[in-house]
Amino acid sequence: MPSYFSEIAPVQFAGPASTDPLAFKWYDRDKLVLGKRMEDHLRFAACYWHSFCWNGFDPFGYDGTFERPWQHVADPMAAARAKADAAFEFFAKLGVPYYCFHDRDVAPEGATPRESVNHLHEMVDVLGEKQQQTGMKLLWGTANLFSHRRFMSGAATNPDPALFGMAALQVKEAMDATLKLGGENYVLWGGREGYETLLNTRMGQELDQMGRFLNMVVEYKHKIGFKGTILIEPKPREPTKHQYDYDVATVYGSLCRFGLEKEIKVNIEANHATLAGHSFEHEIATAIDLGIFGSIDMNRGDMQCQWDTDQFPNSIPDTALAMYLILQGGGFKTGGVNFDSKVRRQSIDPQDMFYGHIGGMDVTARALLIAEKMITDGRVEKAIADRYAGWKSPEAQNILAGKVSLDDLAAQVLAGGADPRPVSGRQEYMENLLNAFI
Amino acid sequence: MPSYFSEIAPVQFAGPASTDPLAFKWYDRDKLVLGKRMEDHLRFAACYWHSFCWNGFDPFGYDGTFERPWQHVADPMAAARAKADAAFEFFAKLGVPYYCFHDRDVAPEGATPRESVNHLHEMVDVLGEKQQQTGMKLLWGTANLFSHRRFMSGAATNPDPALFGMAALQVKEAMDATLKLGGENYVLWGGREGYETLLNTRMGQELDQMGRFLNMVVEYKHKIGFKGTILIEPKPREPTKHQYDYDVATVYGSLCRFGLEKEIKVNIEANHATLAGHSFEHEIATAIDLGIFGSIDMNRGDMQCQWDTDQFPNSIPDTALAMYLILQGGGFKTGGVNFDSKVRRQSIDPQDMFYGHIGGMDVTARALLIAEKMITDGRVEKAIADRYAGWKSPEAQNILAGKVSLDDLAAQVLAGGADPRPVSGRQEYMENLLNAFI
Amino acid sequence: MPSYFSEIAPVQFAGPASTDPLAFKWYDRDKLVLGKRMEDHLRFAACYWHSFCWNGFDPFGYDGTFERPWQHVADPMAAARAKADAAFEFFAKLGVPYYCFHDRDVAPEGATPRESVNHLHEMVDVLGEKQQQTGMKLLWGTANLFSHRRFMSGAATNPDPALFGMAALQVKEAMDATLKLGGENYVLWGGREGYETLLNTRMGQELDQMGRFLNMVVEYKHKIGFKGTILIEPKPREPTKHQYDYDVATVYGSLCRFGLEKEIKVNIEANHATLAGHSFEHEIATAIDLGIFGSIDMNRGDMQCQWDTDQFPNSIPDTALAMYLILQGGGFKTGGVNFDSKVRRQSIDPQDMFYGHIGGMDVTARALLIAEKMITDGRVEKAIADRYAGWKSPEAQNILAGKVSLDDLAAQVLAGGADPRPVSGRQEYMENLLNAFI
Amino acid sequence: MPSYFSEIAPVQFAGPASTDPLAFKWYDRDKLVLGKRMEDHLRFAACYWHSFCWNGFDPFGYDGTFERPWQHVADPMAAARAKADAAFEFFAKLGVPYYCFHDRDVAPEGATPRESVNHLHEMVDVLGEKQQQTGMKLLWGTANLFSHRRFMSGAATNPDPALFGMAALQVKEAMDATLKLGGENYVLWGGREGYETLLNTRMGQELDQMGRFLNMVVEYKHKIGFKGTILIEPKPREPTKHQYDYDVATVYGSLCRFGLEKEIKVNIEANHATLAGHSFEHEIATAIDLGIFGSIDMNRGDMQCQWDTDQFPNSIPDTALAMYLILQGGGFKTGGVNFDSKVRRQSIDPQDMFYGHIGGMDVTARALLIAEKMITDGRVEKAIADRYAGWKSPEAQNILAGKVSLDDLAAQVLAGGADPRPVSGRQEYMENLLNAFI
Repeated sequence: MPSYFSEIAPVQFAGPASTDPLAFKWYDRDKLVLGKRMEDHLRFAACYWHSFCWNGFDPFGYDGTFERPWQHVADPMAAARAKADAAFEFFAKLGVPYYCFHDRDVAPEGATPRESVNHLHEMVDVLGEKQQQTGMKLLWGTANLFSHRRFMSGAATNPDPALFGMAALQVKEAMDATLKLGGENYVLWGGREGYETLLNTRMGQELDQMGRFLNMVVEYKHKIGFKGTILIEPKPREPTKHQYDYDVATVYGSLCRFGLEKEIKVNIEANHATLAGHSFEHEIATAIDLGIFGSIDMNRGDMQCQWDTDQFPNSIPDTALAMYLILQGGGFKTGGVNFDSKVRRQSIDPQDMFYGHIGGMDVTARALLIAEKMITDGRVEKAIADRYAGWKSPEAQNILAGKVSLDDLAAQVLAGGADPRPVSGRQEYMENLLNAFI
Repeated sequence: MPSYFSEIAPVQFAGPASTDPLAFKWYDRDKLVLGKRMEDHLRFAACYWHSFCWNGFDPFGYDGTFERPWQHVADPMAAARAKADAAFEFFAKLGVPYYCFHDRDVAPEGATPRESVNHLHEMVDVLGEKQQQTGMKLLWGTANLFSHRRFMSGAATNPDPALFGMAALQVKEAMDATLKLGGENYVLWGGREGYETLLNTRMGQELDQMGRFLNMVVEYKHKIGFKGTILIEPKPREPTKHQYDYDVATVYGSLCRFGLEKEIKVNIEANHATLAGHSFEHEIATAIDLGIFGSIDMNRGDMQCQWDTDQFPNSIPDTALAMYLILQGGGFKTGGVNFDSKVRRQSIDPQDMFYGHIGGMDVTARALLIAEKMITDGRVEKAIADRYAGWKSPEAQNILAGKVSLDDLAAQVLAGGADPRPVSGRQEYMENLLNAFI
Repeated sequence: MPSYFSEIAPVQFAGPASTDPLAFKWYDRDKLVLGKRMEDHLRFAACYWHSFCWNGFDPFGYDGTFERPWQHVADPMAAARAKADAAFEFFAKLGVPYYCFHDRDVAPEGATPRESVNHLHEMVDVLGEKQQQTGMKLLWGTANLFSHRRFMSGAATNPDPALFGMAALQVKEAMDATLKLGGENYVLWGGREGYETLLNTRMGQELDQMGRFLNMVVEYKHKIGFKGTILIEPKPREPTKHQYDYDVATVYGSLCRFGLEKEIKVNIEANHATLAGHSFEHEIATAIDLGIFGSIDMNRGDMQCQWDTDQFPNSIPDTALAMYLILQGGGFKTGGVNFDSKVRRQSIDPQDMFYGHIGGMDVTARALLIAEKMITDGRVEKAIADRYAGWKSPEAQNILAGKVSLDDLAAQVLAGGADPRPVSGRQEYMENLLNAFI
Repeated sequence: MPSYFSEIAPVQFAGPASTDPLAFKWYDRDKLVLGKRMEDHLRFAACYWHSFCWNGFDPFGYDGTFERPWQHVADPMAAARAKADAAFEFFAKLGVPYYCFHDRDVAPEGATPRESVNHLHEMVDVLGEKQQQTGMKLLWGTANLFSHRRFMSGAATNPDPALFGMAALQVKEAMDATLKLGGENYVLWGGREGYETLLNTRMGQELDQMGRFLNMVVEYKHKIGFKGTILIEPKPREPTKHQYDYDVATVYGSLCRFGLEKEIKVNIEANHATLAGHSFEHEIATAIDLGIFGSIDMNRGDMQCQWDTDQFPNSIPDTALAMYLILQGGGFKTGGVNFDSKVRRQSIDPQDMFYGHIGGMDVTARALLIAEKMITDGRVEKAIADRYAGWKSPEAQNILAGKVSLDDLAAQVLAGGADPRPVSGRQEYMENLLNAFI
């Protein structure tokens, strides 16, 4: 097996003072944080698609900028094997414990549906061996239902039921592959499940299709005994004008409508959050509070570019707040931190792939350490607890418990007569406090 | 009673060829559209707040630009009466059948909760008489839970339960007022029900409070026998950074969580839709498809200004598409078209208030006529029906009915072997078709 | 020569009542509008790239959706000829008088710079013949300095001077080609002239390079006797995070800095205007008022999608306002209306290409007729003239002429003593007036 | 003189380990940074308007939330004196060396223009005394030409020349006041110099008015011997739909057009930068590279709220990059760091005013220390220098010097034959490097 990254040694922790750009400054996998190893908190995954499938193309540069050798192998299955070699060499040198993939990332589309299925399972065997050899684990698998032209008008929400069928086949096989490889979650991203114009769209019909599809997926999960979590990844738009899984709150509403709010959770992507007009921490908090937090796709958008830039995260404060919320919410269960991030198309060297991931892992590790300090310190939590202390009183608890009617409460207020005085929200105090931990 | 608009005669329909800026060109209330009077289709309402309470202030001009005589009466209750005189003179001259108000629009805050309640009910009697005299009806009432400083951190979602109580009092009284005046709906807009920073916010706690509050409202509605509809008005942000009733889909999810999806519907505002990253027609279609469409607040935003400009609608194509969807969805039941719109702060003449409303009513009437043509013509509906025709087959219906499992369907697809060919979405054809009706 | 559009007849004007989707309803080329033929007012062009080079790919679908036969010819030069056949058959059937192209649209990149140049000039001969045969004219030519990976970090603004040289070669040859084909303008679009991050960018250096490059272009224009106009096409971002030719006002500042404000004008794209946070009409008005209005790229963006969707225009009111401003500004000189628009990637049929262009031409023609009515009527212009009438007084003219100093004017005001009263801006009146012409 | 902040002691530097929320953790005024005192680098100013004039009102809460005692004094001039007492007590306790004001912040509008002028100069005497007593200095003065209703349609760009005159009077007097108080700059912010709709606007006429006005200001500056800098503060919109001083690049173009690019510089506000679609660092870099960098208004926007939130800065990385660019550009001359920031309207306690400013000063001081480390380390600068090294060659210098024509350069490239290979932009490497300094 040839080496694709022969000039790069396995990445080691060297501490914050190191100036080696190919060493970790903060990610020290065995370091204990609140009693648990850093690696076990963060459950880092690298993804197949951005680093191994994408050639650096963009809407104004079709041919791409990268010249990855594994992308220049003529035979499709030989190319898939070369890509797997490159990917696992990279994963192992980087030292992430997990990876993620779409079916079409790891195995090529065949000439017929049957051939596509065969390709996938042949490659699943290859991946299984590589997992054996390296100790890598699969965080999640998924099916690509958005790249092939057949899905241009959607997969489960396609106006043509034959394409709903094609989607069913792909998802079934990808679920089987995920189970076989010990995947801990299965993700659905509805890149084309939405519309370009309402003028040609029957939205209610399409939502019914989506509901039925999701139920079929959950039923099949139980049938095959998959113990992992089914996750939906919200995104508001792009490639479509409107995507039905717009944001966490919208997905929650759909799950309720489809009777699936106990069965499916969300995989939250930072860049998708900002595209939807939310902060990353908002989406995390919403998912936790609605009971559907699952996993995260770690990256960042560019706040001046309202499309999916999938950059590596580099904001220490933003990531710290995200980590704090996740820890306060109980941490990851089957989920983890997947880098759905890609190097810029001008970053054409193999080293750049390492710089991107190392930087992202260091920022996240540093965020975890900051979150630990915040929790140990306790001032943030105390300030919030004090703010809501009034709701601990028996009278207030009665209100929440549904024991007081609107008119009874109104009558009490009228009888009391006093006008309650508002209390400072102390936002600047809280912001300063957060910065004290950075 | 003095006249505030003595120089303006009641607005009449004069037809499209008229050059009189104070006449309707398209709104012809008795004209039959699809067998129903235009007035009965549109159920136009004018609102109290923008035209009668606002003085033209903005964030950079506190003192306002208007010099409305009814805003310069010293005694608060005398000022409230003068304002009612002005409002009803305006409504009547304009010829809208409905109006809408917040409690604090029509009656001033008192020195104590009791005094505020007394003020409101005193003014409800005045309004009742004016409804008698003019034939005006109340489309909906609501409570202002966002202007007073006591609600700076929210009303139902306030960290202090005493303020939840103040909100309960105000809503109870506003519901009583609405019932007394024959209001056909009651609206809740949660202008401060949200957060400025997650750093000081316990979102889950606040959502629980909101859920309890909404249930208290619905229970009270039934207790007093109010037959109208309870409506929530979604808005993503402003004045807060994040408002819990973000958009129609988010409200739907909340209603499911609170067990209220059969009890509460939505009042959709055009400008709030665009602030949430949606088109107006998207929000309408979503509400119809989720079964919670209630009423609309007609206005428009400025697509270059991402704040709530509340301008009068002037886009014929956008309004036509909205009207088409509403008619296809069965039209208004208890809802209607309320102009939550204000003249620009440079439009300081009384005539400008008429120009704004006349223009908005004409655009909406014209949109209704276009929608009628689209329905009568049938090509738009047929193109959509053709696109989804495949789902009418028994096999496809079985899938939707839950009779086919994921693996069974996958097996059928694999057995069939053929790869379905995608079909043109014909978006440009549909867009041209829409323009043919304008 | 095979026909690529054999099933489609040349598009004819059939009038507004026609229901033929392949006929013009409004574009009637010989109709006189304000004394000039519609065709001579609008100077429509179709572009090569969107309809003939793009395969329907997008960031989530690399392989594209279209299956255009001319894109499946193996030999690059034979493919270029097939593409030219298809393009000119389409242009002629559509009935636009002009077309536009990038060098790489019409001729393939060669193995060496020399071969690329040879390819271009070989195809220029082919295009010349086709212009002869069909009567088509070239509105403008341009060079593609953004698709090839060599330009990933910019062309004229590249950190490597060797790439500045490559850009010089391509522009020189594309200018020669444009001259040879009788092109009426030459356009520069700086798709990668900008930056991804300031962290690796020396902006001042890059701007100096850009200034030098533009001067070289203008010097060469004069050297070869090209009588057309050099145009810059502003765009704020995409593909880069920041593009130096951000908007019309920014380009104007650069031209002043480079001493080129009399030599270069702008080609304004509707979708680029909205991406920059402006309305299309704003960019047109700005260019006219700064004396640099040249030509337009007609299309529209999607106001919910903040990337370049390049849709066909369909808004009658927006296009009417644009046309009104252009006519008031004196109309097009060497410029025209180029459809930098593409059918949606789901619009995979050849007919869709016609629907898109026909719809866009009809909307523009209709807008021209509305603008004619506005001008003939005169009320819009009169309302504006009245608003500024005060500036006609000799005292006001003295101020503008620089004859009054700040302190003199202040002294006069103080002596006068009176506080001038503001006058209504009558925005709603003006908006209603505009709708009266639609 | 009563104390408004009696419970708060002068703010002291206590070091990063301090948990005192009313002490500086990083701002240590006498600490030497690159050989200069921190105070002399940063030249901090606090502003009058947000903390002393604003009452916490917002578009949905007219009455405000604050209950500042100095805002409840009945007589206008007595209130102005009380406000000055409060402001200078605050400034002195906070320990900023500078302050900034609008004319109407410090002195009330009078019943006549003459009375307004008298009020201003009476208060200038008060401010002068307070400067004496406290050692405070004036960073800049300005005139408020946007709050009074007379300026609703603009000041210098008003359709009515009488209002241009009123603006001239106010600016003349504010310049006199600034001179008298030893102000180091004079700022112009054109809050209403723009338009709401092009339908009623003659933009070219208004730009001519603006150009004349700015020239009058510069002429007057020289006449009275004001040695400070005239600064324009760009902002894209709000309160107007479009403001003529959109961003730094637009202002530069206007200055060139008016012949003032050597006379006027810019005051860059962070929140205005992001509203214009730029990063703060972009605007700073642009101003430095165009030679018009003057001063900054330090604050931040909320990336989810597209209006002017004027929050205190809290991002260490963003501020570090800004400070790095400013130091690399030579640091402040007459400019400084003015906190155009306000506490949230829920932050109603006097302490909150201190928390906001302390947090902002600490973040900026910390950013300065990071910038110092970056400069001392030199890796960032070296990486950039290496990237552009090719432009140091004599051949490349000849190109920039205008000694090579387009066709000569093209001929050289063609003769050379080789296709230059692109080089990695190393963005992720640079981003990691920046984080290493935080």
